[in-house]
Amino acid sequence: MTDPREQGNAPKTPSAGSVAAAGLSCPVPAAAGDRVLLGHGSGGKLSARLIRDRFLPRFSNPALAPLGDGAIVPLGDERFVISTDTFVVSPLEFPGGDIGLLAVHGTLNDVAMMGAEAVCLSSGFVLEEGLPLEVLDRVLDSMAWAAGEAGVPLVTGDTKVVERGKADGLYVNTTGIGRLREGFEPAPDRAEPGDVILVSGAIGRHGIAVMSVREGLGFEVEVESDTAHLGPLVAGLSVACGDAVRVLRDPTRGGVASALNEIAAASGVHIALDGAALPVPVPVHAACEVLGLDPLYVANEGILVAVVRPDSEESALRALRGHPTGAGARKIGVVESGPAGMVSLKTGLGGSRVVDMLPGDQLPRIC
Amino acid sequence: MTDPREQGNAPKTPSAGSVAAAGLSCPVPAAAGDRVLLGHGSGGKLSARLIRDRFLPRFSNPALAPLGDGAIVPLGDERFVISTDTFVVSPLEFPGGDIGLLAVHGTLNDVAMMGAEAVCLSSGFVLEEGLPLEVLDRVLDSMAWAAGEAGVPLVTGDTKVVERGKADGLYVNTTGIGRLREGFEPAPDRAEPGDVILVSGAIGRHGIAVMSVREGLGFEVEVESDTAHLGPLVAGLSVACGDAVRVLRDPTRGGVASALNEIAAASGVHIALDGAALPVPVPVHAACEVLGLDPLYVANEGILVAVVRPDSEESALRALRGHPTGAGARKIGVVESGPAGMVSLKTGLGGSRVVDMLPGDQLPRIC
Repeated sequence: MTDPREQGNAPKTPSAGSVAAAGLSCPVPAAAGDRVLLGHGSGGKLSARLIRDRFLPRFSNPALAPLGDGAIVPLGDERFVISTDTFVVSPLEFPGGDIGLLAVHGTLNDVAMMGAEAVCLSSGFVLEEGLPLEVLDRVLDSMAWAAGEAGVPLVTGDTKVVERGKADGLYVNTTGIGRLREGFEPAPDRAEPGDVILVSGAIGRHGIAVMSVREGLGFEVEVESDTAHLGPLVAGLSVACGDAVRVLRDPTRGGVASALNEIAAASGVHIALDGAALPVPVPVHAACEVLGLDPLYVANEGILVAVVRPDSEESALRALRGHPTGAGARKIGVVESGPAGMVSLKTGLGGSRVVDMLPGDQLPRIC
Repeated sequence: MTDPREQGNAPKTPSAGSVAAAGLSCPVPAAAGDRVLLGHGSGGKLSARLIRDRFLPRFSNPALAPLGDGAIVPLGDERFVISTDTFVVSPLEFPGGDIGLLAVHGTLNDVAMMGAEAVCLSSGFVLEEGLPLEVLDRVLDSMAWAAGEAGVPLVTGDTKVVERGKADGLYVNTTGIGRLREGFEPAPDRAEPGDVILVSGAIGRHGIAVMSVREGLGFEVEVESDTAHLGPLVAGLSVACGDAVRVLRDPTRGGVASALNEIAAASGVHIALDGAALPVPVPVHAACEVLGLDPLYVANEGILVAVVRPDSEESALRALRGHPTGAGARKIGVVESGPAGMVSLKTGLGGSRVVDMLPGDQLPRIC
C-alpha cells in the first residue's frame, strides 16, 4: 500500500502490517495521466467503476458491501440506516426547488428507500466567498421548511468557507439516520420473477427543470422539479404491503433506467418495461426531443420505483395514490427470469429494445 | 418567512402555518449586499455569528441547542453522538498528513470530545474534474489507514464531480456516530472554579505545517501536522478519571484561544493561562514570529484540551502520557470564578493580557 505519510511520526504512520491487520485490501494503482471526469459523477457506468475500483477495495466491511442507498448499522438494541449525500446542483435555484430542498429530500429519500423511518439529519456546508447571504438565507429557509415538513430535526452542522472561484456558490452534504421497520426490508437484490414494477409519479421532471435554467442551455419549458419527501409513501407501503415490497429505489442521477439496471443486476433478473405505460409528461417529452435525451435517463427527485409481489399490486398502488406525492402511481413493467441482469422496453409497435445503464455523462451537477 | 418556492406544487409549498406548526422561528433577513467572507469560516467570532444569526433560528431543536462538537441523540436503548465536518484544507497534502487523514481524524475527534466511542463513519466527496486519480488514491489510502487504525468502519459514501474550476481538487465531508459512555459526559459548560486546564501535546503544529506549503506563503520549517486520532486518549481519561473530566475540546480552527474562550463563555468562568507552561515548539514559535501570528490561535488536529477536577490532575496527566499521542501532556492553566467568560494569559514578567476569540480570519482553509 502506498503510504503518503512516510514523513509522519509514529502514531500516524501506517505499516503494511497494520493495514493488513485492519483487513484493508491493496488498492489498484492509477495509471499516470488518469484524471477525474465529469462522467464519474453521472450515476452511470463510470460512477459505478470509480466506486468499485477505488472505494470498495479500501473500505471493504460488512455494512458497506450491499451498496444500497445507505448502510445498515446496529445501534443500541435496534438497527438503523445511515445515508449520506453531497449536493452540488447548478444552478442553486431552479423551477420548483433549490439546493436546500434537494439536500433534505435527497437524503431523507435514501433513508426511506432502505425501508427506514428518518430520525435526524446533519448538514455540512461549503460556502464560496462572495455568496450573497440572502441566497444562503433562502437555501436555509428551504432546508428548515423541508426538515420541518418531514418532522426530522437537523441536529448538527458544520460550515466551511473557500475562496471565490473554489466552489460554485455553495455545496451541502446531508447525512441521515433512520430506524429500520420490523419485517420491512426492501433491498436491490430481492426482485423475483413475477413481481411488478411500480412508479409513484411522472418521470423526468427534475432533470428537465434544472436543464431549463442551466446557463447556455436555457429553454422555455413549463416543468418544475418533482423534489419531494418520499417517506410518507414508504410508510404507506409498509403498512399496506409489508414484506411484499421487495425493492424500493429513488431514480435520481442516471434516472429510472440506471435504477432498474442496478436492480436487475443485483437480483439477477430481467426487467421488462411497457413503453406505453411510462408516465412521461408532455413538456418533458418535448424537451427530451429537443435535447436528444431519453426520459428514462433523466434525474428525478420526488418519485420512487417499487418492485412488489404480484398479489400486492393493487394494495401498493392504492397506498401510493393515497398521498398527493404518489397520486400518479402506476405499473410500468414486470420482473422476468431472463435474460438476467438486463432491462428491456416494449415499444409501441410490438418491438423491444435494451435499456442499458447510462454509459457516461448525461448531465453533470443535477443534484 | 420568505418562500423561494412560490411556484412549487402543493405537497412541497410551505405555508406560514405549516412552518409555525413545525416550531421554526422566523429568520433574520440579510441586508442587501451582505456576502459570505472568508472570515465566516475561520472558527472565530464571524463564524460564531453566522451560526447564531442564520442557522440556529431556523433549525432550533433540543439536540442542536448545546452547540458542542456534535449532537446527542437517543437511538434504540442508548444515547449516541452525531458529528459532521467538511474538510477543505489547501493544499490537499502537507507535511505530516493530507486531507484524508484530517477527514477521518477530525470527525472521530469531535465524537471523542463529546465523550463518545466512535462506531462508524460516512463520507461524501466533491471531486473537481481533472483531479489526478493518483491523488484521489493517496487520499483514499490515508482515509482507509486512519479508519483502520481507529477500528472504525466507513460504512457508506457518496461522490459528486464538479467542473474544473468549481472546487479545489477535492472536498470531503465525514459524519461520525459514537456511543456515549455511561457516567462520562464532558461538555463545554461544565468547567468550575478550581478545575485545571490540561493540554495533551504541543501547540500550533498543524496550522504552521499547512502554512509552510501554502502557495505564496511557502517557507522552510521543520514542522509536521499533529493530525491524530484522540479517541485512545479519551478512552484513557474516561477510565482514569471518569466524571472528573468536565470538558474536552480539540482546538482546531481558531486554536487553543478560541476553544478556551468558548469554554469560558459556556461555563461562565474565567480561565487563567500560564504563559510559561504553554508547549509551543521552537520552530512553531519561530514561524509565528515571522508571520506575525500568536500560536494560541493556530489550528491543531491532534491535541485536546481537558478541563479536569483538581483532585484528578495527576491521574489525568498519567492517562494522557500513557499514549504516544499524549506524551507531551501538561497543565497550562486553571479555572477561576471571574471575570466570567474571559481567558487571560500570565506573561513572563508577572503581567497578564486578555486572550480574546479570533476576531475574523487568521488563515482560511486550514482543515
